[in-house]
Amino acid sequence: MTKQDLRDLFVQTSVQPDSRSTVAMPDPSPGTGRHLPPCIIVVFGASGDLAMRKLFPALYHLHGGGHLPDHFAIVGCSRTEFDDPGFRDQVRKSLPSPDNGDQERRDAFLRSICYQQLQYDNPDDYMALSRRLESVSSLFGTQGNTLFYLAVPPQLYPEISTRLGESGLAQEKDRTHEWSRVVLEKPFGHDLESAKTLNDVLHRHFDEHQIFRIDHYLAKETVQNVLMFRFANTIFEPLWNRNYIEYVGITAAETLGVEKRAGYYEQAGVLRDMFQNHMMQLLSLVAMEPPARFQDEPVRDDKTKVFRSLRPFELQGKFSDLVLGQYAAGRIDDKDVPGYRDEENVAPDSLTPTYALLRSYIDNWRWQGVPFYICSGKRLAKKLSRIIIQFKDVPHAMFRHILGEQISSNRLILGIQPDEVINLTFQAKIPGMNNILRTVTMNFDYNQEGKTVIKDAYEKVLMDCLLGDQMLFWRQDAVRLCWAYLTPILELCESCGDRAKHLNFYPAGGWGPEEVATLYPDYLKDHA
Amino acid sequence: MTKQDLRDLFVQTSVQPDSRSTVAMPDPSPGTGRHLPPCIIVVFGASGDLAMRKLFPALYHLHGGGHLPDHFAIVGCSRTEFDDPGFRDQVRKSLPSPDNGDQERRDAFLRSICYQQLQYDNPDDYMALSRRLESVSSLFGTQGNTLFYLAVPPQLYPEISTRLGESGLAQEKDRTHEWSRVVLEKPFGHDLESAKTLNDVLHRHFDEHQIFRIDHYLAKETVQNVLMFRFANTIFEPLWNRNYIEYVGITAAETLGVEKRAGYYEQAGVLRDMFQNHMMQLLSLVAMEPPARFQDEPVRDDKTKVFRSLRPFELQGKFSDLVLGQYAAGRIDDKDVPGYRDEENVAPDSLTPTYALLRSYIDNWRWQGVPFYICSGKRLAKKLSRIIIQFKDVPHAMFRHILGEQISSNRLILGIQPDEVINLTFQAKIPGMNNILRTVTMNFDYNQEGKTVIKDAYEKVLMDCLLGDQMLFWRQDAVRLCWAYLTPILELCESCGDRAKHLNFYPAGGWGPEEVATLYPDYLKDHA
Repeated sequence: MTKQDLRDLFVQTSVQPDSRSTVAMPDPSPGTGRHLPPCIIVVFGASGDLAMRKLFPALYHLHGGGHLPDHFAIVGCSRTEFDDPGFRDQVRKSLPSPDNGDQERRDAFLRSICYQQLQYDNPDDYMALSRRLESVSSLFGTQGNTLFYLAVPPQLYPEISTRLGESGLAQEKDRTHEWSRVVLEKPFGHDLESAKTLNDVLHRHFDEHQIFRIDHYLAKETVQNVLMFRFANTIFEPLWNRNYIEYVGITAAETLGVEKRAGYYEQAGVLRDMFQNHMMQLLSLVAMEPPARFQDEPVRDDKTKVFRSLRPFELQGKFSDLVLGQYAAGRIDDKDVPGYRDEENVAPDSLTPTYALLRSYIDNWRWQGVPFYICSGKRLAKKLSRIIIQFKDVPHAMFRHILGEQISSNRLILGIQPDEVINLTFQAKIPGMNNILRTVTMNFDYNQEGKTVIKDAYEKVLMDCLLGDQMLFWRQDAVRLCWAYLTPILELCESCGDRAKHLNFYPAGGWGPEEVATLYPDYLKDHA
Repeated sequence: MTKQDLRDLFVQTSVQPDSRSTVAMPDPSPGTGRHLPPCIIVVFGASGDLAMRKLFPALYHLHGGGHLPDHFAIVGCSRTEFDDPGFRDQVRKSLPSPDNGDQERRDAFLRSICYQQLQYDNPDDYMALSRRLESVSSLFGTQGNTLFYLAVPPQLYPEISTRLGESGLAQEKDRTHEWSRVVLEKPFGHDLESAKTLNDVLHRHFDEHQIFRIDHYLAKETVQNVLMFRFANTIFEPLWNRNYIEYVGITAAETLGVEKRAGYYEQAGVLRDMFQNHMMQLLSLVAMEPPARFQDEPVRDDKTKVFRSLRPFELQGKFSDLVLGQYAAGRIDDKDVPGYRDEENVAPDSLTPTYALLRSYIDNWRWQGVPFYICSGKRLAKKLSRIIIQFKDVPHAMFRHILGEQISSNRLILGIQPDEVINLTFQAKIPGMNNILRTVTMNFDYNQEGKTVIKDAYEKVLMDCLLGDQMLFWRQDAVRLCWAYLTPILELCESCGDRAKHLNFYPAGGWGPEEVATLYPDYLKDHA
């Protein structure tokens, strides 16, 4: 247990406001920038695709909305040679064209950007970076706080984090007054072993509270709302257990194929690409116990507890709890699309799954016996991400003599994509003289409610990094537990002798292999 | 226990379809007329206001919709002299003008109407009626089934039912093959004593299964839907108890004053006019246990059980559980309206309450300690009937450090008037980067759903009489128990020494006396 953990343990009984929890509390006023600590955001891979396409536009919007600290600067780092004005020109091109009045704001944003060329493996370059950061800090008044955003291929994570540590950049004087944070995106390792190695390297110089492992899926409104929905309402939590829930369905369906990512995807497959991160996070949000506080560490404690309670896959029915698929040629949006094996850079006899349906169980008091159907795939009929809570049938069908067996059970849908919605279906009497029930749906659509525009997930993520709020970020124990859970599944799918036999081909544009219906009887009803 | 009760007791285990339960089951197809037993509907008070304004138009619509039996006839009875054609002319005037094609239908309907003059206290006239019914029955093929609808002042109920019995018209050969039913509307007596007397008189010649005590309020969609809503859905019943519900509010507010009914109202007041019937029925539907079957006797058994569990008012705090009011002059819809004491035929020092708020408790496992706020009044701000289920606060306000104490609890509203709706309010995160909750409402509006037009309550009531389905009708034990419950309240309000002190005047067009806020703190929030 670290000192911080000890502090957290007592913070609840403390009457004095805790400085850290104050930082972690977003201010509800629209311009939060004033309350943020000053800092420099260092972007590694600054000339790359992710930085230009996502990060700089997100930072620009935050700046425009008054969400960045009053004192801040951005330092771009990459192998490419630029001077400051040259790099600013690059960034300018990545930003949306400003309206008349916005020209000045854009220029102000660009003036806060500097550039520092750097070879990722050269210690001298990190010393130069360190000196540069000192001068930028005194110029912009950022008081030594630094956020290192690693927008680089994951193979570079160990190198960069080690060099940052060795050059002293990972050191914090006092984390509430001068801090250093490192931000990285998935994948966090390729399997349990490599994930452990990555964690070890990171921890050589960074403490866990300094490491922000992004899952940008978690920044979506509905995902964030799951906890508030569950724990700010009295009426759902009493139903949220094995007594009332028949099953939980968690789906993330894409219409896209492997696109230009075959090099990575051939190694990863759908299980590493989607399950070891987004799907497991959704699972934990739906399944977790009420946390002691709505704060990063307590929330992550209870997420981790869910992962600890996952029934080890070895104890399950192997292929009777798992359906794997790979897309064949088909039609999507009235266009012929090739099969996975015909995609560029994919082996013609590839056995990489592009689709998986996994039936998981959580062995605890709340969830014993309730199947969690976790499903994700490429080239499916619709872009669709959602969580279905399927409630059980009424215990006594007292209307059966009037209505037959036609009464549908209640269902709650938390829609994430394409629409961020909450749907509740229930039975009501059809108006008229006869007693006929009808399934009706109550909807709540985020886009219709509230005037605040839904922010890009990257903006939310960057904000939380600046605030030091790790609630939506992966903690090392969770990463490790999820890899441990997935390892036997990956082994089954990658090295068992009859794995070719168990890879089911499905036409692009459908809902995946037919075999799913055996495992998850309501599959088609729930998706089509 | 009657033979019928014994039969009912075993009907659940019977494999053979029970003839009675078959009759009691409305057919879901639009034209149910074919499945109804042939019959004559005898309307007493046929030339009166209720018959002309409500009954004949309702019968006409049922006829037009194909909902009446293939073989049926209507016999009007009253003291006024008419011949058949003369009476048909009267009825014709009460019907809506037909569209082109409907002329023929209207004539067909009118041809089924006969008239029989009758002095209500003259035995010979009943013998004449009996002979007339025989000839009408053989003419129209109605096989002896007769429904007597007493659309007359309640003082005449004993006289007419006794004469019907003495002339043999109450007799049934076999209730599934030849039946006789009597239909009456509230008030069922003026107090416990007179209600008992009325029941005794009725039962001298009619068995309870032959007596249909109407509460047309129960024929409203939302009211009927309460049971289906509760028992065809899994998700509400687990919350429907003292563990999760803070209080239940049942309101029936009117904007109208006493109008032309002062003669009756001065004697009745709001407690007899609204509480001893509509309000108690709503209470029983909200509070009852799941019935053994969705059928008239089992449903009424469980309603009665609620009335038996009402905490006797003597054990409560008298005026600390009751607020009485009388409307003073005020404005409604931008028009000045007089106070109750200035209305025609009202005593200038009248102490009749036109408003009451009663806090009731149900002493059973489900409801112990949950207040039921029952409230009805005239000349209030809005015509509004609804049931509010107010859920408790979340047990652990884990968002308090972010949101303060502002989280509202969940609430379910079953709206009856002006709109038949179901609303569920809950908390969801406001879209945007900050964690701010907002109360959102999911709506289900009966009028938007379903294409079937909502039928007039009288049509529903008449249909159920023809079907022999007593579910929506008062049973004698319930009438008795409700009078017994209200008696000490009526005594308090009518004969206690300081009753004048406890009658609170409220301006017409408001929400009643200010004193309600002491008893029901959220009163204004719930209504305005």
